[in-house]
Amino acid sequence: MAESIAFVDNEFVPITEAKISIMEPTFTKSDVVYDTISSYRGYIFRLDDHLERFESSFRAMQLNPPYSLDEIRHIVAEMVIRSDFDNTCITLMATRGPFIDLANRDIRKCKNGLMAVCVPYYWVLGEDKQTTGVNMVITDNQRVPLEAIDAKVKNFNWMDLTRALLEAYDKGGDSAMLCTPDGYLSEGPGFNVWLAKNGKLYTPLGNLLEGVTRRSVFELAKEIGADPVEKPLTPEDLRTADEAFTSTTAGGITPVTQVDGKTLGNGAPGILTTRLMEEYWSRREEGWHGTRAEEILQDRDVA
Amino acid sequence: MAESIAFVDNEFVPITEAKISIMEPTFTKSDVVYDTISSYRGYIFRLDDHLERFESSFRAMQLNPPYSLDEIRHIVAEMVIRSDFDNTCITLMATRGPFIDLANRDIRKCKNGLMAVCVPYYWVLGEDKQTTGVNMVITDNQRVPLEAIDAKVKNFNWMDLTRALLEAYDKGGDSAMLCTPDGYLSEGPGFNVWLAKNGKLYTPLGNLLEGVTRRSVFELAKEIGADPVEKPLTPEDLRTADEAFTSTTAGGITPVTQVDGKTLGNGAPGILTTRLMEEYWSRREEGWHGTRAEEILQDRDVA
Repeated sequence: MAESIAFVDNEFVPITEAKISIMEPTFTKSDVVYDTISSYRGYIFRLDDHLERFESSFRAMQLNPPYSLDEIRHIVAEMVIRSDFDNTCITLMATRGPFIDLANRDIRKCKNGLMAVCVPYYWVLGEDKQTTGVNMVITDNQRVPLEAIDAKVKNFNWMDLTRALLEAYDKGGDSAMLCTPDGYLSEGPGFNVWLAKNGKLYTPLGNLLEGVTRRSVFELAKEIGADPVEKPLTPEDLRTADEAFTSTTAGGITPVTQVDGKTLGNGAPGILTTRLMEEYWSRREEGWHGTRAEEILQDRDVA
Repeated sequence: MAESIAFVDNEFVPITEAKISIMEPTFTKSDVVYDTISSYRGYIFRLDDHLERFESSFRAMQLNPPYSLDEIRHIVAEMVIRSDFDNTCITLMATRGPFIDLANRDIRKCKNGLMAVCVPYYWVLGEDKQTTGVNMVITDNQRVPLEAIDAKVKNFNWMDLTRALLEAYDKGGDSAMLCTPDGYLSEGPGFNVWLAKNGKLYTPLGNLLEGVTRRSVFELAKEIGADPVEKPLTPEDLRTADEAFTSTTAGGITPVTQVDGKTLGNGAPGILTTRLMEEYWSRREEGWHGTRAEEILQDRDVA
């Protein structure tokens, strides 16, 4: 039977056994970076792109996981095979690890670790929103600025995102779009945002995660002639867009059909949005940017 | 034998058994608030002040721990008695708790929890620094602004503080002092800062934790005629101070003897600093603002 699996303390374990000490700075200082990868119909999507970003995140925090990127690639493949789901989300975490001595809490002396989990594919905004679209609230709560926390270093310091999400829920929304301190659109809790105006596609620049799905949308948009552009965007740009959508690993492309409770366009997922969703999933199914877990494990057997 | 103790899942357990699932948003979104209390010579310090701040933190994040403040007070007392250390640090954590369903990750449906730990008293800046003082580096890495994350809501989103600490270490310092986005002193990783100039004491205003020890220093400083003032302070104010120190629950008052590697005053802990350190600990020993754990538990037996 298919089951969610974790890799903790150098072992593959059922996800219910995947725990960490509440004394680790990994938890008490949220001193951990991560990356989330997906597999669809047996193909792991853009694995090297994710591993590259993961490495860039852990290096930025001076973390040294006890495995090479190639070993991590094998751990990912092993989890996909063992879990036996058709479609999965795999999260890699590089942790600061436990203090050697609780009386001398020096993060430089911690034994850095690696954890990973593999669960059935999930939709960060809810699977039902694939057809209905989301009501996106542009929140007063801002995204942290680059000078404090670099959003490109994928991390669990989500308090700004969570506060924004609570604010969006209070205002009747499904999710939140945060702005930078200077008032431009940045990102939401777990996704990038896109908007279309007069047949052209736009996505924000700034202190935000450079999503792998965002990169994929760039490629698809170019191919369908939607001329994607990365530039500073205002809340007004989103409110007056013809259509809008989010992009993320756990959920692909999701239509935005309302902004701050007001209907966008005709209230249905937009034409460009729908086209991109179709392209994205049909290509994923064909193995676009995909690697099969079996191939990765075969490499090891040969080496 | 004295031992560190935790309270997890409604049970007192040895600290080595205190763990949480790595799937909880408590961890993966650092969706948890906390407070740290100390006991010294059997007296729990300003317990009600800490509980009041803890409540204010969990309410701000719409968290509902499954215990009343009075029950939490008893858990604290029970841990102090059971652990049997002379001096302790007790950390309370209000957690978002596990998702009911990993396929529908809605934080509003999580079962909020309470965890606590009681460990031997420790010094966030190292006990040796009580006599030598610290070399404090004013970092380029800024503190998160209020508009993104409210530092008064005591939380584990420490990435800005950790980045600043790594920067300070790289520059040869012992710890870090972060500034607000508009360039004023804020706080360091786990402590407030104070400086003295011409016999008067100053501490920053802004998006920082209103420390309970900071409040205690206000009281002591007034009593010794040092006229404490809370106001926006610049890095230059700290660099040109006569003396400086930090205040925190886990470490009390710690002298700052260097700023950015340059000696402050004559390089020894300052006169006001030393006076305040002596006052602070001698009063703590006499039970100033203190509650005995036994008394709290007796209340329960009577009730």
